[in-house]
Amino acid sequence: MDSRTRQPHAKQSLRVWIRMLRATTLIEKRIRSYLKGEFDSTLPRFDVLAALSREQAPVTMSELTAHLLVSNGNVTGLVNRLVDDGLIAREVDPEDRRSQLVVLTPAGRSAFRDMAAAHEGLVDSLFAQLSDDEMEALLSLTEKLNKTLHRQDETE
Amino acid sequence: MDSRTRQPHAKQSLRVWIRMLRATTLIEKRIRSYLKGEFDSTLPRFDVLAALSREQAPVTMSELTAHLLVSNGNVTGLVNRLVDDGLIAREVDPEDRRSQLVVLTPAGRSAFRDMAAAHEGLVDSLFAQLSDDEMEALLSLTEKLNKTLHRQDETE
Repeated sequence: MDSRTRQPHAKQSLRVWIRMLRATTLIEKRIRSYLKGEFDSTLPRFDVLAALSREQAPVTMSELTAHLLVSNGNVTGLVNRLVDDGLIAREVDPEDRRSQLVVLTPAGRSAFRDMAAAHEGLVDSLFAQLSDDEMEALLSLTEKLNKTLHRQDETE
Repeated sequence: MDSRTRQPHAKQSLRVWIRMLRATTLIEKRIRSYLKGEFDSTLPRFDVLAALSREQAPVTMSELTAHLLVSNGNVTGLVNRLVDDGLIAREVDPEDRRSQLVVLTPAGRSAFRDMAAAHEGLVDSLFAQLSDDEMEALLSLTEKLNKTLHRQDETE
């Protein structure tokens, strides 16, 4: 490693971060406009359905919130609208009768399945120019980054 | 390349995208809370100052908006507050006297310099566990991804 021909780590970090932020912003924009156009839906709604689809059993609102990828101010409002649309159902928590659980309805599960397949196809088309080896490398680098970010969060 | 031992490209794309989104969301959260704590400022404000700091001359509002990294609904409101705070000045566009240009004030340039140095240190600490070679790889992969995303945007 020849440090004379390299950017200092700090400058390199900033360049990497700006490129990651640009790519993520562009991809998010594409997904938002696709979900709007194809399903008249939004990324936060998709995120709630995706989080619930990964659960085997009904979950509390705070469990749901913890599993969302897209940070969102108003999970309660989102869930209310998804309940109105028949995609989510509420149940009373048997362990704490004052609190409510949420779960996908069969209609919600089926709507999510359609959206998820289309979403997967869209995301794949955005990464299509990267070879399998490049995807492998990007996966392992972002995995390592996430691990260190989580570790830093825990030690704070 | 042995496709039997690999995830199909589409599944791999989804895994990469979710990890990129997670990392970006975590890093953004850290930057937001840092800017709030250290400078009582926000990421959209920092983004506006950063965009203007890269310009040699005053720019129109649409030029400014085009150079922002963090998508923002209300650039006019942000700019108004930065003008009130003395960090940005307005000028009349000599080429079109009905439109206004914006530019950093000396106070804005100096405030941005302090924030940028601190921001660079923070970002570098978040990437500290990645080696120089890993940073190089991540830079080139995200660069390639951005290029293909931009190309796809243009051919739409």
